[in-house]
Amino acid sequence: MLPKDQWYVAGWSEQLGPSGLVARRFLNEPVVLFRTAQGVLHAVEDRCSHRAMPLSAGEVVGDAIRCPYHGIEFDGRGTCLRIPSQDRIPPTAGIRSYPVVEQDDIIWIWMGDPALADPTAMPRHPWHRDPAWSSYYDYYHAECHWQLLMDNVFDLSHLAYIHPRTIGGDPAAHFGAQMETRLTEKGVMVDRRLPNCEPPVTYVAAKGFKGRIDRWQEIEFDPPVIRIWSGGCDVGTGAYEGKRDHGFSLLGLHAFTPETDRTSHYFWTMSTNILDPELAARIFHQTKVTIGEDIPVVKMQQQRIDDDPSRRLIDIASDAGGVQARRVIAALAEAEAKRAQSRAV
Amino acid sequence: MLPKDQWYVAGWSEQLGPSGLVARRFLNEPVVLFRTAQGVLHAVEDRCSHRAMPLSAGEVVGDAIRCPYHGIEFDGRGTCLRIPSQDRIPPTAGIRSYPVVEQDDIIWIWMGDPALADPTAMPRHPWHRDPAWSSYYDYYHAECHWQLLMDNVFDLSHLAYIHPRTIGGDPAAHFGAQMETRLTEKGVMVDRRLPNCEPPVTYVAAKGFKGRIDRWQEIEFDPPVIRIWSGGCDVGTGAYEGKRDHGFSLLGLHAFTPETDRTSHYFWTMSTNILDPELAARIFHQTKVTIGEDIPVVKMQQQRIDDDPSRRLIDIASDAGGVQARRVIAALAEAEAKRAQSRAV
Amino acid sequence: MLPKDQWYVAGWSEQLGPSGLVARRFLNEPVVLFRTAQGVLHAVEDRCSHRAMPLSAGEVVGDAIRCPYHGIEFDGRGTCLRIPSQDRIPPTAGIRSYPVVEQDDIIWIWMGDPALADPTAMPRHPWHRDPAWSSYYDYYHAECHWQLLMDNVFDLSHLAYIHPRTIGGDPAAHFGAQMETRLTEKGVMVDRRLPNCEPPVTYVAAKGFKGRIDRWQEIEFDPPVIRIWSGGCDVGTGAYEGKRDHGFSLLGLHAFTPETDRTSHYFWTMSTNILDPELAARIFHQTKVTIGEDIPVVKMQQQRIDDDPSRRLIDIASDAGGVQARRVIAALAEAEAKRAQSRAV
Repeated sequence: MLPKDQWYVAGWSEQLGPSGLVARRFLNEPVVLFRTAQGVLHAVEDRCSHRAMPLSAGEVVGDAIRCPYHGIEFDGRGTCLRIPSQDRIPPTAGIRSYPVVEQDDIIWIWMGDPALADPTAMPRHPWHRDPAWSSYYDYYHAECHWQLLMDNVFDLSHLAYIHPRTIGGDPAAHFGAQMETRLTEKGVMVDRRLPNCEPPVTYVAAKGFKGRIDRWQEIEFDPPVIRIWSGGCDVGTGAYEGKRDHGFSLLGLHAFTPETDRTSHYFWTMSTNILDPELAARIFHQTKVTIGEDIPVVKMQQQRIDDDPSRRLIDIASDAGGVQARRVIAALAEAEAKRAQSRAV
Repeated sequence: MLPKDQWYVAGWSEQLGPSGLVARRFLNEPVVLFRTAQGVLHAVEDRCSHRAMPLSAGEVVGDAIRCPYHGIEFDGRGTCLRIPSQDRIPPTAGIRSYPVVEQDDIIWIWMGDPALADPTAMPRHPWHRDPAWSSYYDYYHAECHWQLLMDNVFDLSHLAYIHPRTIGGDPAAHFGAQMETRLTEKGVMVDRRLPNCEPPVTYVAAKGFKGRIDRWQEIEFDPPVIRIWSGGCDVGTGAYEGKRDHGFSLLGLHAFTPETDRTSHYFWTMSTNILDPELAARIFHQTKVTIGEDIPVVKMQQQRIDDDPSRRLIDIASDAGGVQARRVIAALAEAEAKRAQSRAV
Repeated sequence: MLPKDQWYVAGWSEQLGPSGLVARRFLNEPVVLFRTAQGVLHAVEDRCSHRAMPLSAGEVVGDAIRCPYHGIEFDGRGTCLRIPSQDRIPPTAGIRSYPVVEQDDIIWIWMGDPALADPTAMPRHPWHRDPAWSSYYDYYHAECHWQLLMDNVFDLSHLAYIHPRTIGGDPAAHFGAQMETRLTEKGVMVDRRLPNCEPPVTYVAAKGFKGRIDRWQEIEFDPPVIRIWSGGCDVGTGAYEGKRDHGFSLLGLHAFTPETDRTSHYFWTMSTNILDPELAARIFHQTKVTIGEDIPVVKMQQQRIDDDPSRRLIDIASDAGGVQARRVIAALAEAEAKRAQSRAV
């Protein structure tokens, strides 16, 4: 149920300078991401072949990562370059490496079959580097299965309950929201409209709305990431006909990468068409607070699910998008299982 | 070995005001107790049928408990009353409810087959509301199987070792204690007499004894609770002939409700015939300290038992009451297993 | 793979005064070591036969250890001496005792078949009480299998990486080290020579070397302990011909006693021919810091091994001694398994 043959977000480019390294577990495997002195990015397993020491406790030396215990060095393909106490390097001394690609300020990693890793097949996110948008990069660790994070962003009816002090806004508006779900080429798109409603606190602070607004929330599942387009314009000024430049726009990138079967990386960025640094900073801070409100919620859910994983959950109307997304993921996992089977034959 | 078809103490009435709620696990199941705005008490499973969110993180709204995540509401019978994003309520949206009864300031819960829950079958404890007695209500969480707590209160020979600074009193007296154990209609009664002994610190503080006293300790197992009647009178003034009004009397209610297989709720109250508020408060504080001394002891026992649960324990003479109580519980569990079997046929 | 039929270090004599006790787990079994008021040392299981209470929470009373819960007393052979509430002592009330021997300021314990415990068969370590040497006794708790600690002291090529600020010295010297491994009567000896090298910081502080020195490191596995002889003399003054009195000598005793399958006791002493108390204290402090640097390393290794215990480790040239030591241990374990088998037939 966990597709391995796809690109996952492994971090943000800005987090890893020359000769930097970071340890992260992805899909249960310990990985160390490192950048050479020349700036090239690599990912190898975070385990020395000699005595299982985590390489991430060591350091980057030129093009190599050096084990902190006995000084054994490996390059970005996992090849063992040097064993200080001997001349011969045994062929079994190599370690596993993982395909990585950097694009749109995002570090992508491929945890599955390297032969299938098409370096152009990941989603694009050009808004990170578009001067018409201002962007902010951050991260939360979530103690839950990634599927609970997917559910969270797809069913925005929780805004009225979990986020009333930030982006929730008028509760009544959420109950009457118009929602339409459709399959896209690769994923799912949910259009959610809240016409003629009170602007949330965040919106007023950002754009100075005086009266009621037409809000939109468009949730786009572009596996494995989710984009949430949201914003508002003064009522009747064209928000639902594509005229949004005069309004307030937010674009959230939500990338949930499984860490273990019970924990997830929640990489997220927020972009806005508000370029004023102070206003933008306030929006990003609000987003950080808002997502921070979800983290204990999904943890509590996971604990209750773990009490008896055999019990079923029921779906409600506002889960339509999340249910579709689960089907997309299940199809990817099924295709992967079939490939594995045909290889075995 | 854990009877489910009986009333267990779930808390004290005073702990739960109108619109209040409290989350507690009983017999491995997560439960939320809540009181409606009108004061009616309910217990339902602490898990929303939608996405397994703990309802106890939500709030009581009128007659309902509302999930904090998406606002779904349930009444005290577990019926789903409202799903904010839709009109139709699917029949599978209901959750489990548990019979609860309030009596003698005690909240009782029935975790087994609801059809067997006779609302008059729990032990009575009228002293809580008797003006001749002053009572205090409290709670400890114990990291052990409830059986270890039963053993603890039945074998009072531990008073001399664990509680010398509080209710232990003269160690020599404990070794020579006269003890008699007998079966009652439903449970077990242990009579323990310590005639002509030094009064413990607590007793002197409460009643001002000048010389030696005749002490009694009567441990009454009225499943699933235990009452400990204890106290003392000046030597030879009728303590063992039922003339105790002139002496010092304590009545402890010890209710051990299993939380999990390895942890227990220790609900306890202490009542005394000392009505002076300051003196009574001192007694209650001493009791709190005393029971607090047992908590690390039973935790250490449990840890050692968990080291190798297959190893046997030996019984000593002073375990007579505890051994009888174990048989009573085993008989209840056996009868329950037979009922389950006959239902299955 | 864990030989039980051998003497293990259980502590240092100086740690346990008259009427003292200490709780320690060895080879997964909870043990309490206690010394009677007369100074005799005993080891019994740390579990009362009555209700599994840890005896180590109690106290030593004369020749006995008394359970803190109900006052039951046991002597050093595990015989139950007294049950406060009764006269008869049931024969099943006894607990297990373990052979212990004190020698060379070391407490030795035998966790296996007591019939095989030859009280003269443990390694000797006379330097502890030799006035030509100054000694220091200490302990670390290590969250790893004891084998990782064996590997650590046998492969000293890690000195250059983990201990550059203390005993590591010139990294280049370590790569060119001459090493010879040979089997001894009972164990393994590794001779490691670093001729004509820069003295490490510790050495200069101790002996005031002005120029380069001839260093030696001799690692002696005398099951189950390891001695590391190390030191240095001015270049060409006889270090490798046995003339070392004019130089600087260290003798470390490293005793790794398994606590559980995943944790170990690291008992260690350091002896030196530097008798000046202030200089010696500085050396001992340096040793404490140095070994302290290894503790997080072995913990990280163990965590990574636990990720997937089925994965193999590779050996490098400098593991020669450690590999031999593993074979010695495997042979001991095999002999023990054969004895168990022949007993069963």
